[in-house]
Formats: sequence, C-alpha cells, structure tokens
Amino acid sequence: MTITGKNLIAGQWSGETENGFTAFNAVENTAMKDKFADASEQEIENAITAAQRAFTSYSQLPATKRATFLRTIGEQIVQLGDELVEMACAETGLPAMRIQGERGRTVGQLNLFADLLDSGEYQAVIDLADTKRAPLPKPDTRLGYLPLGVVGVFAASNFPLAFSTAGGDTASALAAGCPVVMKAHAAHPATAELIAQAILKAIAIAEIDPGVFSLIQGKNYAISSQIVTHPLVKAVGFTGSERVGMILQQQINQRAEPIPFYGELGSVNPQFILANKLAADASELASALVASLMMGQGQFCTSPGVWFVIDGAEYPLFAETATAEIAKTSAGVMLTPGIANSYKQAIAQWQDIAGVDLLAQGQAGVEHFCQAAIFSTDLATFSANPLLQEEVFGSSALIVKCADFNDMLQAITLLKGNLTASIHAIDSDLANAKQVALATAHKVGRLIYNQMPTGVEVCASMNHGGPFPASTNIRTTSVGSEAIKRFQRPICYQNMPNELLPELLKS
Amino acid sequence: MTITGKNLIAGQWSGETENGFTAFNAVENTAMKDKFADASEQEIENAITAAQRAFTSYSQLPATKRATFLRTIGEQIVQLGDELVEMACAETGLPAMRIQGERGRTVGQLNLFADLLDSGEYQAVIDLADTKRAPLPKPDTRLGYLPLGVVGVFAASNFPLAFSTAGGDTASALAAGCPVVMKAHAAHPATAELIAQAILKAIAIAEIDPGVFSLIQGKNYAISSQIVTHPLVKAVGFTGSERVGMILQQQINQRAEPIPFYGELGSVNPQFILANKLAADASELASALVASLMMGQGQFCTSPGVWFVIDGAEYPLFAETATAEIAKTSAGVMLTPGIANSYKQAIAQWQDIAGVDLLAQGQAGVEHFCQAAIFSTDLATFSANPLLQEEVFGSSALIVKCADFNDMLQAITLLKGNLTASIHAIDSDLANAKQVALATAHKVGRLIYNQMPTGVEVCASMNHGGPFPASTNIRTTSVGSEAIKRFQRPICYQNMPNELLPELLKS
Repeated sequence: MTITGKNLIAGQWSGETENGFTAFNAVENTAMKDKFADASEQEIENAITAAQRAFTSYSQLPATKRATFLRTIGEQIVQLGDELVEMACAETGLPAMRIQGERGRTVGQLNLFADLLDSGEYQAVIDLADTKRAPLPKPDTRLGYLPLGVVGVFAASNFPLAFSTAGGDTASALAAGCPVVMKAHAAHPATAELIAQAILKAIAIAEIDPGVFSLIQGKNYAISSQIVTHPLVKAVGFTGSERVGMILQQQINQRAEPIPFYGELGSVNPQFILANKLAADASELASALVASLMMGQGQFCTSPGVWFVIDGAEYPLFAETATAEIAKTSAGVMLTPGIANSYKQAIAQWQDIAGVDLLAQGQAGVEHFCQAAIFSTDLATFSANPLLQEEVFGSSALIVKCADFNDMLQAITLLKGNLTASIHAIDSDLANAKQVALATAHKVGRLIYNQMPTGVEVCASMNHGGPFPASTNIRTTSVGSEAIKRFQRPICYQNMPNELLPELLKS
Repeated sequence: MTITGKNLIAGQWSGETENGFTAFNAVENTAMKDKFADASEQEIENAITAAQRAFTSYSQLPATKRATFLRTIGEQIVQLGDELVEMACAETGLPAMRIQGERGRTVGQLNLFADLLDSGEYQAVIDLADTKRAPLPKPDTRLGYLPLGVVGVFAASNFPLAFSTAGGDTASALAAGCPVVMKAHAAHPATAELIAQAILKAIAIAEIDPGVFSLIQGKNYAISSQIVTHPLVKAVGFTGSERVGMILQQQINQRAEPIPFYGELGSVNPQFILANKLAADASELASALVASLMMGQGQFCTSPGVWFVIDGAEYPLFAETATAEIAKTSAGVMLTPGIANSYKQAIAQWQDIAGVDLLAQGQAGVEHFCQAAIFSTDLATFSANPLLQEEVFGSSALIVKCADFNDMLQAITLLKGNLTASIHAIDSDLANAKQVALATAHKVGRLIYNQMPTGVEVCASMNHGGPFPASTNIRTTSVGSEAIKRFQRPICYQNMPNELLPELLKS
C-alpha cells in the first residue's frame, strides 16, 4: 500500500505532508522517508462535525450491522498482511512475533465486541406497569442504553495495534454506536495509516457513513487540546503516561460540559512475596519475575516494577538470582529515542537516592536501547521517597525488603493506585495472603495469585483499570467486553408504545 | 427528641451552637429557636478520617448485614413519628401529606437497596481457566465489585428526606459498602439532625462502626470545599442548582486524584405536544400540564418547564386553558426566602425578553410565596435566548409555539440536556412521535410517553440523570437500584484460591 502521510477525514485523505513530521525507524534509529501532515484546525473541525453527522445513522444501526462492520475491520486488517507487521516492527522496534500476536489480539477484540452485539448488547431491565398500585399506579419503565456521541481516542506508544487505531478504545466505542476521531501516535504514523486504510475499506463494504471514523496525524499539542475540548466530543479514551494524561484531564476540566475521560496511566504493579513462598521457591520466582519484567523491554503497563519481599534465610538467594538474571540480559531497542532517554534519566535518579542500591544492570547497548536494571531498598527508604512509586517505563525493578509481615502490610498502605498486584504464596502462607489480598484489593484493578501481571486476558471478567493513577476513571475497564460501557449511558423509557422502543426493549 | 444543633462526628455530637446559624420556619417566614453549629475544620477532618477507619470493617461486612443495617435505619426513621413530619414541614413549607409520602419513599429506597444486597449485590462474571489453550493458557478470572471508599453527600433543598440525610445517595453509598460524610442542607438542619439520630440508633443496634456516618452542619462554603477536596473522599453526590454544582465540580477538578462527581443539576423537562394530540385533547392536556407544574410549587427537578406545541386550530384553546388554569392557582410557600427571591428575579428577567409574552400569573401571595406564571414565545425567540433554557425553580412554564413539525424537530436540536422529556401523542401521531423520540432520546435521561414528568418511580429500570446539565455524570442514575453502581468499581481476581475470593465469586 502507498502511505499518503495524510489525515483521513471522514473518508477523504487530506493535508499537506511537505512541512509535516517524519516517521522514525526505531530499530535503525533513523528517520524514515515518509512525511506526515500535522492536521489543521479546519481538518479536525471537519472530522468532528462529520462524526456528529454520522452519529445519527450509525447510532440507529441494528447492533448486528455494527457487529458485521467490526468483523469486516478485522478482516481488512488481516488482509494488510506482512506489510503491516513490517511497518509496525520498523516504527516501534517490537519484534515480528509480538506484532503478529498483537494483531491477533486486535482482531480478537473486534470480534469479541461483534459477538457481544450479536448476542444482544445489554441485558434489558423491564418493570411492567401496575395500574392498580395504590396510592399511585406504577408506570411501565424500561432501561436501555444509548451511545454517548463522538469519541476522541488517543493511540498508545507501546501497543501500535491493540491500543491504537483499531484497538480496544476504538473497537468498544464503535461497538457502542459512537463515531471515533482517532489521534494517531506520532511514533507510528504509518502503521496508523495502514489500519485506517483497512477501516476505510470496511466502511465501504459495510456501507457505513464515512464520518464514523477519522484519523488525525500530528505532533502538535494543540491538536489534542482541540479534540478534547470540542463541545461535540462526548468522551475521550487515552493510554499513556501520567504526565500527558493529566494534561488532557486538565484541558477536559476546562469544558463547560463535563465528559468522561478514560485515561489509563501509570502503574508499578507491586509483587508481594510471602515468607513460605520465598523459602520454597526463591530462585524460580526471581527468574520468573525477571522474565516478566523483560517482556517488551519492560514497556508494558503491567510490568512488575516493585517487589516486596519479607526478609528471611532465602532472601539472599532471591536477590542474587534476580541480580544474576538481570546481568545476563541483552539490551533491546525501545519504542522511541524519547522513551529511551526518559528511561536513562529515571535510572540515574534512582541511583541518586540514598538507601537505594543498584544490584545489577543488564548488558549495555547502543544509545536508543534499554539496559535492564534491578535495585533494592528497605521500607523506610521506599516510604520516604514517593519517586520510587513513579512508573519507570522500561525493564527496571525495585526490590523492597520488608523486615517482617507487618512491614509488608505497612507497605500496602503506602501504595498509590495500580493496574495489578500479584501475591506469591504457598498454602502455608494462606492466612497472610488473605490479609494482603484484602488490603491490596483497594489499591488495584486486578489482583493476581501466583501469576505474573504481564499478559492481559481479553474477556468478560477482565478489569484493566484501577485506582488513580492506574486510571482516571476507577469505575471502568479499557480491556474486555465491559469496556463498551464506557461509551454507553442509561436511558429510561416510560410508558412507551412498542413501536417507539429499541428492539431489545420491545414487549 | 431534643435538637442538639451539633454535628454528628462518628457517633459523637460535637460543636458549639452559640455562634452558629439559626433554623428557619418557611411557613411562618421567621427564625426558629434552634441554633446550629457550623462544623469546624477539625470536626470535618475527624469525620473523614473516622469514616476511612470504618471503611475497612464496613466494606468487609457481609452484604446481608449491610441490608439489615439499612432496614434498621428505615425503622428508626419511622419511629421518629410525627415529630419528623412536623419539623420537616416547618423547615421546608411542604405540606404534611407530601412529607409523609417522602418518608415512605425514603424508607422504601433503603429497603430497595437492602433487597438488592440480600439477593446478591451484583451478577458474578466468572471465566474459568483453560490450561490447554494455545498459544497461552487462559487464567481463571472473576469480576467482582468493591466499594470506592468514603463518600461525601450534599443534601438537597427540595427533598428534605428522600434526597437528604438518609436519602438515595446515602442509601446507595451505604449499600455499596461506603461510609458517608453528609453535609446537611442549611435550610432544614433540624430535620437532618432527627434523621441522623435515627441513623445513630441503627448504628448501635446493628453494631456498626460509628465512623460509617457523620452529619456536618454549616452555612460556610469552606465546609463543602474541604469535603470534596479531601484526599480520602473518593466520590461525591450532590443534588441542587447548576450554579452550586459547578462550583463543587471546579473544586473537585483541582484534586490531584480525579474522583467521580455525581451532580444532579438543572432540567426544564421539555414537553412535546404533537398535532393530532393537540386537536384531540387541547384542553385536558393543558390542565394536566398545569397540575404537574404546580406540584410542590414547581420545586421538583422534573417540573415541566418548557412546552413545545405545533400551531393549529386548537392551539388557542390549549393556551387559553393553560392561562385560565394558572390564573386560578393560589400562591404557595416556597422552600426558602432565597429560593422565593430567585424565582421572582427569574420571572422578571423573562418578562424583559422581547418576544416572550406573559400569558397569566397565579394569585399573588405574601413575600415568600410562589406566584405561578405562564409565558409563551415562538421558536425564533427561544432559539435566540439561551436564558429560556435555564431552569426556573418554581411553578413557571413557557409555551414555545412551533409553526410546524419541522420547527419542533429544529427545537430539539437546540435543547441542552434534561432529566426527562414527555411526548404527548395519539395513534395518528405515531410516525412523528417516533422522530421526536429518536432525536429527544439523546437529550434526556428518561423519555416519557403521554405521562407527566413529575413523579420518579424508584425501581431497577429507572434512570434519573441524563446529559449535562441534568447530570455531571451521564452514565449514572441517582434514583433506583442502579444508583448503587456509582459507589462501586470493578476488580478482577485472577487465579485466586477460593479462600481469598469474596463470597459471590467463590466456586
């Protein structure tokens, strides 16, 4: 496919690429040939107003037609073939196998929401009339759900497919009946365009109003601001750093009309290693944690960043194993030079904190590669340095040595919000594990037992969210079928004749 | 019961009433004898930290125990007997029958949530493990819900029982497992204290940590700010004016951690009268709308404020009937002198708008009484004056004459968000009614056919909310059993042993 470098505005490719920004090859650490047009104010306005126009017909489509549209998007993504994989690998530095897996997940997500639509979008709640009730008759009331309207979505740097152009936010918004105005991530604009081409084909095949999807390219911050503050935009989805997420949140806070902002931000994914588990499996567990940490160079939102371990006879073995495993790791390419640079700065900051020891670093690589690192500290230092709870995006972890179980319980009270936490325990730890589970539940969106946090299952019972800063909206998930609810809202129909009710609510 | 005039801080009555504010008798338009202590900064801090301490035990109570607690609160409210009715009538000017009805609704709401807890708080979603799945095994994942934490609730002026101290927000937060810090409305502090006394008795009977409920009295704006910006407060419920609601929203926007704000603000509850309905029932419909408007002197959030009518042969009969009915109405006492004053100002403002005609006023009353009013205008004037979409709190309505059905469809596009809208139609209007329904659905939280908007059914299929300014959080309802979801959030348990799972999620 030819990469136009343009914005897709309601079915039309638009913009001048000449003065635009350049795509970047993460592996080779060089600029690529394609240039991309920063979307103009007018183009963004056109995208949003076209989305609002499309909303009327799209929101009234039968759910099964939306399902067919989602499946067709998935098919068109598969049709892109190796070109998509090669482009995503070049732009992100992620290996082909990972991108292939992510493509499978992306198509799987689209199909998950299609299945949901085919099976009935939601459970109808119907309370029939009771004309004889005293003192007042009970009216017929039926609870349904409506799509919110135009949704702004921001692509993630670390998931160029599954959390980007046709990723979970887009899939769930389209499933809900909402048009999407997608802001591509400037680190993978060509991958975004390929996916947008696939969506455009699906729009033609399914005969959907092309206003239902626009792709906005750009490196200009004003673009994001224009999208999130536009009066016709009724919800925003974002996956990225706490810093950028909170800039968007503050812009949204300036709106006359409050709208939901679904920001999935930072998480250190604490690991709690109980005493008997440590005694039984110190070495195996340390190796498994390092393996989880190294996935995607630690550029996963669920990467295990802080490990709480109760001191004991096997603690040295645990720390030594982790140290040795980290020292063996090869450096790997990071998503962008900016991310590589932030990682280096974070590691340097940690090294400057009194009471934090650098146990080992992985093998060094070239400038834009990630060199893994493992640190250790004690609870007092962890408690005194809030910086140690900031997510380090990359393969760095911190072991926090707790003097005893009470120290571990104390550590939990210090935690900010996280996407996940894992408890590592054996049967004889169960009473303590229960205490950790009860306390930690209020700090996380997903609580895991004897498994690693990396790898998020896409299913009805998943929750990918949690207390701030894991999410800006604790009541929602960005992964799994429940994610559709972010873009729907309740409406009660009272005393409506059957002809005026949505299909799911008819008698 | 003796009214102490003090704040209830986690089981202790606290504060100095001497320099406090005075309760006010709305009927007699005079100060009452009781004085009330403005809560101090320290008292509010104590209430919130005690609530957080109580959260641990209260959130872990079996749901059936929370159900018993809610039922006991209801029983203790009934035990207050006539004293509660008399006090609420004096403080609000509402008649005894209305207060008795509202008491029934308040107890009914508590029991509704108790029933919900007894029947299982939520539907468990369980996806079992599949260890043989390729390429990766599927872990066991189970979706449950946790209470958010301490909830701040603000009482409403117009529902001293059902939307106040033990009203819907308190009942749903306590049902969810959240402690409540309640800010009483300064217009009915003695009623608030009586209800708080009932809750305190229920706390003792059910052996609940008294930190689970505190009552904050005060007329000082700093009190509200301290509650909504406190880091331990995890959600806020509010029912009141758009002006005050948006002040709270802006304070909440300053927080480091975003939290949900459930503000139920203004609504004009548009009425759409279709052509054949007008021809068939002009006079009866006008009378019915005036009757709905006059309920509680129009001091209902669902009061029918704007009536869109298509011009036709029967329009004069419709307008003349409404005019005659309004002219006959007696003036009635309003909730507070401040509300009476705001109402007078709003009516005066409308009279100053060119193109708006005052058709009739009700009989005049004394200074603090509401004199009903009915205005008419055309679509051009309605379109040009956003002020006409501001809620007038009191029994005033505006007839907007539409030249034809297209004018009516045009009017819908102009509307801001509303709690409700009603479509008045007969069978021969059905095709047009369908168009109105489709367009209006996106502007309201409840869409009604041939019934009046006043009267909100408390049931599972109710939605009391809607697009801003009806609600600051379009995805939620403040009435009905779904209201509990405002104070719960999802959590996924992965690979958890049965012993560590909540009851509802165990195998």
